Amino acid sequence: MTSHPIHITLVTLGVSDVQASAVFYEKLGLKRAPASQEAVVFFDMGGVALGLFGREPLAKDAGVPPQGDGFRAVTLAWNQSDEDSVDNAILRAVEAGGRLVKAAEKVFWGGYSGYFSDPDGHLWEVAHNPHAALREDGSMEL
Amino acid sequence: MTSHPIHITLVTLGVSDVQASAVFYEKLGLKRAPASQEAVVFFDMGGVALGLFGREPLAKDAGVPPQGDGFRAVTLAWNQSDEDSVDNAILRAVEAGGRLVKAAEKVFWGGYSGYFSDPDGHLWEVAHNPHAALREDGSMEL
Repeated sequence: MTSHPIHITLVTLGVSDVQASAVFYEKLGLKRAPASQEAVVFFDMGGVALGLFGREPLAKDAGVPPQGDGFRAVTLAWNQSDEDSVDNAILRAVEAGGRLVKAAEKVFWGGYSGYFSDPDGHLWEVAHNPHAALREDGSMEL
Repeated sequence: MTSHPIHITLVTLGVSDVQASAVFYEKLGLKRAPASQEAVVFFDMGGVALGLFGREPLAKDAGVPPQGDGFRAVTLAWNQSDEDSVDNAILRAVEAGGRLVKAAEKVFWGGYSGYFSDPDGHLWEVAHNPHAALREDGSMEL
């Protein structure tokens, strides 16, 4: 019986065009992991990996219907060490082909945050949280 | 201008009942981070954090409509070091209140994989990948 707590090894995004999506993430600085193939691309993001896989085969892999619309109730966050870096990261994502969803602004919890979406509409928050230090590896101390 | 590659600091799941969802993840071995509050709970998963936030306020935070149905085109994976641990992890998730989506089985890429969903239907794959070693911190070598 495993006694390890649950953790995220891999976040897989279902996308309409794996290679186009991979180019978007490459423009944001990621390098394809050797395990990548034509139909599935992996990026090692340090601690957690990002996978890009067709939306339909991803649903099939889980054995669930592929239909789905609207808000996915999942957001990924890319935290930054200051507010300028938030603006710059969002700009970089938009230049890479992402969509600006919400320009960064001061938010109620004391931070600075905005959102972009990737070419398939997956939501990324880019934030600076003055209450949470970033460790050397980019992870956040909560 | 930031030159850091994009990475995932935090995965936030929109849920119908933050505290009920938090209990589910506590049963899977996670401990609430000090930054947690009534309306938002964080877990440090080592490298990446997991956030639980109301589905509606999460949509509002991103400035997008909260409506959405069906397949979310996002899966989270919890990799294991052997097949028995996959079965055990899925069993543990179901005992904690998750739903068995797909019993683990040998899959085409040479691994062993199954799926459960959390109380809000967020999909977790539990997998053993014989081609990808797990590092000491549980992350995967791709």
